[in-house]
Amino acid sequence: MLTLFIGNKAYSSWSLRPWILLATLHIPFEEKLINLYDDAGKKKLRRQSPTAKVPMLVDGDIEVWESIAILEYLAEKYPAKNIWPKNKAARAHARSLCAEMHAGYMALRRNYPTNFRRDVRKRELTPEADAEVAADVARIDAAWSKARMLFGKGGPFLFGKFSAADAMFAPVVNRLYIYDAPVSKTTRDYMTAIMALPAWVAWHADAAKEKWHHEIYDSI
Amino acid sequence: MLTLFIGNKAYSSWSLRPWILLATLHIPFEEKLINLYDDAGKKKLRRQSPTAKVPMLVDGDIEVWESIAILEYLAEKYPAKNIWPKNKAARAHARSLCAEMHAGYMALRRNYPTNFRRDVRKRELTPEADAEVAADVARIDAAWSKARMLFGKGGPFLFGKFSAADAMFAPVVNRLYIYDAPVSKTTRDYMTAIMALPAWVAWHADAAKEKWHHEIYDSI
Repeated sequence: MLTLFIGNKAYSSWSLRPWILLATLHIPFEEKLINLYDDAGKKKLRRQSPTAKVPMLVDGDIEVWESIAILEYLAEKYPAKNIWPKNKAARAHARSLCAEMHAGYMALRRNYPTNFRRDVRKRELTPEADAEVAADVARIDAAWSKARMLFGKGGPFLFGKFSAADAMFAPVVNRLYIYDAPVSKTTRDYMTAIMALPAWVAWHADAAKEKWHHEIYDSI
Repeated sequence: MLTLFIGNKAYSSWSLRPWILLATLHIPFEEKLINLYDDAGKKKLRRQSPTAKVPMLVDGDIEVWESIAILEYLAEKYPAKNIWPKNKAARAHARSLCAEMHAGYMALRRNYPTNFRRDVRKRELTPEADAEVAADVARIDAAWSKARMLFGKGGPFLFGKFSAADAMFAPVVNRLYIYDAPVSKTTRDYMTAIMALPAWVAWHADAAKEKWHHEIYDSI
């Protein structure tokens, strides 16, 4: 049985990635949730993970940390699940987008933190921060729209059927949604498809029930 | 024939990754170098790459950008080259380390920029920056030493034989070397093995011959 260590569902954006993939593709796993915001949780995390970060996947004596490495591991372990798109060009495109997400969009990540309990409203930013976030949103909108146009025929997701690319970008769907970012119709439709996934709905419900509160995130 | 777009060899750390992999594993490719620091180069880059960044690999009508996605693409295209370690646990470990590198070590990257023409000497930093860099160096040293210990039996590289993990970390070898970072003997031996690769020597020689100079990088 796979074990997936994750952080608080309300805030831990990266944890959502492997979780939504496993849940959506019906791959059985045991979830171990660590509260990232108290001392006991932090201590547990330092003991558990080589980088003291979540998510981390444990499969027998194999530990995989970093969301994108977990997705690659699962893609190899479950080839029948087509975790990456089957088409070679689509797969190369999906991996490029995921790598871009893994290391980039810093302004968006800094200014629009993930929060599954926040209601939908704009966030006031300085003009500089606003411009930086707008550039990230524009790039994401263009990237998603291009993927949908080139490879999205077989379904409502980035590469048609649900894939690792949707898992990698799922936290961004929350960010764009709760901060009411202006996006194209293609992107809005894609966001709606992601937010209708049973796994998304379940994660959202779990987040709502969590009793921990992070003062800064909840004040943004 | 593969075409690899790269930046200035003196400074473009990420370009080195796919380049050293292709060159070391004797995979034929055509190199297209773009000077990242003049207007013509910047314009060319915006036209060529969806993110206006290097490296970018073009294989017929397939474009792959982001270094880690390029390595995955090459691993699929040339299975006989064993670009990822053959052992499943080693491969999961290698991908985790590469993902950590792809998105992390920001203090090291900010304060110890890659420069293949710099002589070996320490860099004066503020105590805060110094501590942040030291933490990154300590993590890299520990990560490399652990990989060598667990999986390094078959050769002098992180996972024994040369792999994608060595390609991902090659720019860090330059950084640790030129800023004379204090490292363990295991790490020093590993750095020596990387710097002895014919592909490394060739890249270094090409960088020395480049006529462009970046004022800030060259003053650090």
